[in-house]
Amino acid sequence: MTDSVVLTVPAVTAPLSPTARTTHKRARHHGVAERAALVDVLQSAKLCHMGVTVGGVPMVFPTAYGFDLDGPDRGGSIYLHGSVASRSLAPDSEICITITILDGLVLARSGFHHSMNYRSGIVVGSPRVVTDGDERVKALDLIVDQVVPGRSQHLRDHTRKEMAATVVLALPLYEASVKARAGGPGDDAADIGVETVWAGVVPASTHFGEPIPSEDLDSSVELPEHISTMV
Amino acid sequence: MTDSVVLTVPAVTAPLSPTARTTHKRARHHGVAERAALVDVLQSAKLCHMGVTVGGVPMVFPTAYGFDLDGPDRGGSIYLHGSVASRSLAPDSEICITITILDGLVLARSGFHHSMNYRSGIVVGSPRVVTDGDERVKALDLIVDQVVPGRSQHLRDHTRKEMAATVVLALPLYEASVKARAGGPGDDAADIGVETVWAGVVPASTHFGEPIPSEDLDSSVELPEHISTMV
Repeated sequence: MTDSVVLTVPAVTAPLSPTARTTHKRARHHGVAERAALVDVLQSAKLCHMGVTVGGVPMVFPTAYGFDLDGPDRGGSIYLHGSVASRSLAPDSEICITITILDGLVLARSGFHHSMNYRSGIVVGSPRVVTDGDERVKALDLIVDQVVPGRSQHLRDHTRKEMAATVVLALPLYEASVKARAGGPGDDAADIGVETVWAGVVPASTHFGEPIPSEDLDSSVELPEHISTMV
Repeated sequence: MTDSVVLTVPAVTAPLSPTARTTHKRARHHGVAERAALVDVLQSAKLCHMGVTVGGVPMVFPTAYGFDLDGPDRGGSIYLHGSVASRSLAPDSEICITITILDGLVLARSGFHHSMNYRSGIVVGSPRVVTDGDERVKALDLIVDQVVPGRSQHLRDHTRKEMAATVVLALPLYEASVKARAGGPGDDAADIGVETVWAGVVPASTHFGEPIPSEDLDSSVELPEHISTMV
């Protein structure tokens, strides 16, 4: 589905560096490029930040997520999970999911034009409590596979007890926007002539290191390919 | 200042992996260890996520930040900046600043016990618009130095025009909490005996790559130490 509408994000604060040039890619109707940018962001991160109103305060919590472009919600589904033991979200309250990938530090000649290169997706809506058993299992597998692609197929089935202890929420991938910045600093012309300050970009990325086996893992268990290929 | 109180974060959703063990470090009165954990989080990230209520929705935006433990606010100050041109925050509305550092992917034998190792700080309060000229300059320098430590001293002074175009907000580092998870997976005993699945931790960190000079940078300008030491 490429049908996606823009969520007009009010410029209460612009992301990362409001004073330098940023590209606001608006996801207009049938915006195929925007849809692709959103999917790129969804695929590239391990965690998201969820905004939820608690006692009138817009609280922000980091959390794991998964997504299914062919999920039953309009535009596809982003999945979140939580513990039944914790107070769960009212399914009719609006939440915001923001996913940010830092691509680089943009060092300009002036403080004013310092910035960051990044890709960020924002999805807003009222999440639905997933009740269908098959969708619940698929959602939980997708959340695991977001951490390590292909991981879920190597694991045992979820137990009844585990499923009963877990709340799964789905948020439509419909009201969404993508913002991104790429490229070098946008210095003032007057500063470029005065060459006493280095200017450019320091690339940033998430690095995965040498896997550390669990202390209780039998030494005969070798590192599988779905893990070795990601580091 | 080590005087810090806990913000009781309602368990609307637990961070990252609510179904696995997490340590909720509560910042009690004079909690020196908690204060140190919060400072560690503040020092370790390049960007934060800000929660702000827009039209009733708890919107979440990535943004740059700086901090000053000796700032004039209770507990010190976290600084944010924005453009005057964009609609600015009502200074009396409560916002949430969340900073998250991903330290590792925790791969368990079951999907249920998959988790992430992380450090996350949450600061809540009503931001103050910084009006004092000296504090404004210091705040903007701290925001630049959060991106690259020591950078601001190599830059020219901010111009009047730049200062006039910029809103600086300060949020007290007082109502704050820190959550973290470290260590290996917490598998069920029944799963540990069945050794067909690799379990352990894949370390994660932010990697900074080879700096890319700006296209308009004179080739005679060498990479300074404050940048070369961070990559």
